[in-house]
Amino acid sequence: MTHSNLLYAHSGGVTAVINATAAAVIETARSYAPRIGKVLAAHRGIGGVLAEDLIDTDALDETALERLARTPGGAFGSCRFDLPRDDGGAVMDRLFAVFDAHRIGYLLYNGGNGSMDAVARLHDEALRRGHPLQCVGVPKTVDNDIVGTDCCPGFGSAAKYLATSMLEAGLDIASMVGRKGSVFVLEVMGRNTGWLAAATALAADGDPERAPHVVLLPEVGFDEARFLQRVRETTERLGYCTVTVSEGIRRADGSLLMEKSRDPRGYVQLGGAGSAIARLLHEQLGYKHHWAIPDYLQRASGHWLSATDREQAMAVGRAAVEYALAGGGGQMSAIRRLQDAPYRWDVVAVDTRPIANLERALPSAFLSADGLHVTQAACDYIRPLIEGEFTQPVRGGLPDYRAFELPRLARLLPAWAG
Amino acid sequence: MTHSNLLYAHSGGVTAVINATAAAVIETARSYAPRIGKVLAAHRGIGGVLAEDLIDTDALDETALERLARTPGGAFGSCRFDLPRDDGGAVMDRLFAVFDAHRIGYLLYNGGNGSMDAVARLHDEALRRGHPLQCVGVPKTVDNDIVGTDCCPGFGSAAKYLATSMLEAGLDIASMVGRKGSVFVLEVMGRNTGWLAAATALAADGDPERAPHVVLLPEVGFDEARFLQRVRETTERLGYCTVTVSEGIRRADGSLLMEKSRDPRGYVQLGGAGSAIARLLHEQLGYKHHWAIPDYLQRASGHWLSATDREQAMAVGRAAVEYALAGGGGQMSAIRRLQDAPYRWDVVAVDTRPIANLERALPSAFLSADGLHVTQAACDYIRPLIEGEFTQPVRGGLPDYRAFELPRLARLLPAWAG
Repeated sequence: MTHSNLLYAHSGGVTAVINATAAAVIETARSYAPRIGKVLAAHRGIGGVLAEDLIDTDALDETALERLARTPGGAFGSCRFDLPRDDGGAVMDRLFAVFDAHRIGYLLYNGGNGSMDAVARLHDEALRRGHPLQCVGVPKTVDNDIVGTDCCPGFGSAAKYLATSMLEAGLDIASMVGRKGSVFVLEVMGRNTGWLAAATALAADGDPERAPHVVLLPEVGFDEARFLQRVRETTERLGYCTVTVSEGIRRADGSLLMEKSRDPRGYVQLGGAGSAIARLLHEQLGYKHHWAIPDYLQRASGHWLSATDREQAMAVGRAAVEYALAGGGGQMSAIRRLQDAPYRWDVVAVDTRPIANLERALPSAFLSADGLHVTQAACDYIRPLIEGEFTQPVRGGLPDYRAFELPRLARLLPAWAG
Repeated sequence: MTHSNLLYAHSGGVTAVINATAAAVIETARSYAPRIGKVLAAHRGIGGVLAEDLIDTDALDETALERLARTPGGAFGSCRFDLPRDDGGAVMDRLFAVFDAHRIGYLLYNGGNGSMDAVARLHDEALRRGHPLQCVGVPKTVDNDIVGTDCCPGFGSAAKYLATSMLEAGLDIASMVGRKGSVFVLEVMGRNTGWLAAATALAADGDPERAPHVVLLPEVGFDEARFLQRVRETTERLGYCTVTVSEGIRRADGSLLMEKSRDPRGYVQLGGAGSAIARLLHEQLGYKHHWAIPDYLQRASGHWLSATDREQAMAVGRAAVEYALAGGGGQMSAIRRLQDAPYRWDVVAVDTRPIANLERALPSAFLSADGLHVTQAACDYIRPLIEGEFTQPVRGGLPDYRAFELPRLARLLPAWAG
């Protein structure tokens, strides 16, 4: 078979378990030798494919793969890149030239909504060209907003980290109650959806007296008066109030409460909602205010992984290799929930065409009637995803993460000028 | 003995292991029954003593004490309170009235620099009055800035959390290198000293290519030009740069880079240095910028404790009870370093008078010559303090922290109007 090599690529923001997916892909692909030949990884995502910057994963022995499977971040490098539609096909031509030069018959693309669009389009392009490429999507995002899968690898660990953070910060601020009243605001990621914000509700475990007392979600228009009233009531009762705010909360008119920056391609980097909400509370109610912004920490928390999340990250990687071998180009390996308690799940193939570029928001059944919290149903959905602990080997008091050898393949094509 | 009861009080900001000290104090005091009678705890620190709001710790059985010893935050409540010097002795009179009403002969005061001032003054006042009170200080602060002890319980766990956070965020941003260059800034606590900022250097383990690439400390005047140059050089070499910034960094003229708010008593709540530095880098160098502010998360990280820190927190609590019984009023239980590697330490008594209200800054041997990082000597000092892991029992994917029963003693005095 001339195109027997497999290429794996990270796409978009990385997570605490995307390397677990990568390790599972590599291990599974090796088990199919010689049907699958070399297992390659793109350096820095699709940009590395265009640049013909490819890593030979043969350099990763079993010990290195075990380490890879527990190391946060994306060891091969990632990038944000949307396949252009207006370049006359130049990018597509280059990608297929690289696939041909390196006899790549399988492409496993590990990303979010935008990446599943790329999978669908690469698959269609392969069909159009009569090219043997099987391009399969592997889901990944802390935002948990991919349509077609019950949950997204990366979310469970970020959710566990954030719920734990709110639980612990809640114990801290409860210790420090004074006469004046105090508030604590935790700003979480999630872009346009409130899954990560909702996860912090697990800290309260259904008890309205426990942190977080308010959860502000992008799915609900921000109602300042109602919010201030709830914080005032809570603080008058308990002496303090804790608030989770999603980075992407919007006013009723749809405008973002805060927008940090917008890059030349229009990608909005969010941020600032946490300090804006904390300052609002300080100015309007006079309370002492603290806020935390975990930023990268929430999606890189390898020291406190959800074992369920990690297992799912590996399972979608393994399944994607199988789909590719079975001619399942254009599909994504998705997680299906079979049962809530005890939690049971499996992995199924879904077509990426109808799900590409969509965003799955919190369903209305997960939003409390007053718009200031989430329901028990939301907690019941999220709880199993954060369960299970993974013990990291430790060196000198810190998780024992180490650098990986990433030898590059010799380039065979002219340099890419794009 | 008429004054056989022991009173324990938290003071100032809480930590991930202050409850471990409290549990050790209670357990040790109980072992001295009937020489020590009841073991009481002040609700919300010295403010609770004034309000005669006292907790009967008999309600905490062995299981509860075990839980207390691993729960972050201060279970009995804390407060920031400086003993006034200009009230004609009204506060002192009230405190001793409460001690007498509840037959308190031992006061264990668990706090930082200001608290050691209170210990010294309460001891002197007891001597002046011929009162049997033995007031002993127990050190606690994530800032690690108490003079007279090699380190402060609370610091090791916060240091472990922050070094881990920088390590993990460093892996994340290294994955996301793009053409534009990107920076990550971690803002840490520490007030006027850079111990917590220095701790993040453990993530780099002496490798100048690894995060954090720059550590900005309050002990070094902020030199903007030199800082920008270092970040530019690093980003040109690696594609990204990571920076730790202490909340209390100052310009060369001594002014704070950012000051969030000042309460009526003059207590400055710091904050904003992280976003200020990130924005500076974005504006001056054009880099993509992210910043994290762990805030309370860094001092409440019970899910990732330093076992060494926790053991020291318990040891200073146990020793303080012994000092109180031996007539060691006015002393603080301090940690003494006997050896670096392998690390050996013990607990000794030090007089609080000469150390009260001082702040221990990073020694110059811990500051790199260029003022933009710390030395290997700093890492060698901090490393053993973050070592050892403690496994929290988990429930539903989160640390199994639960509320404590805190029954109050009946009040015997008129209400305090202060």
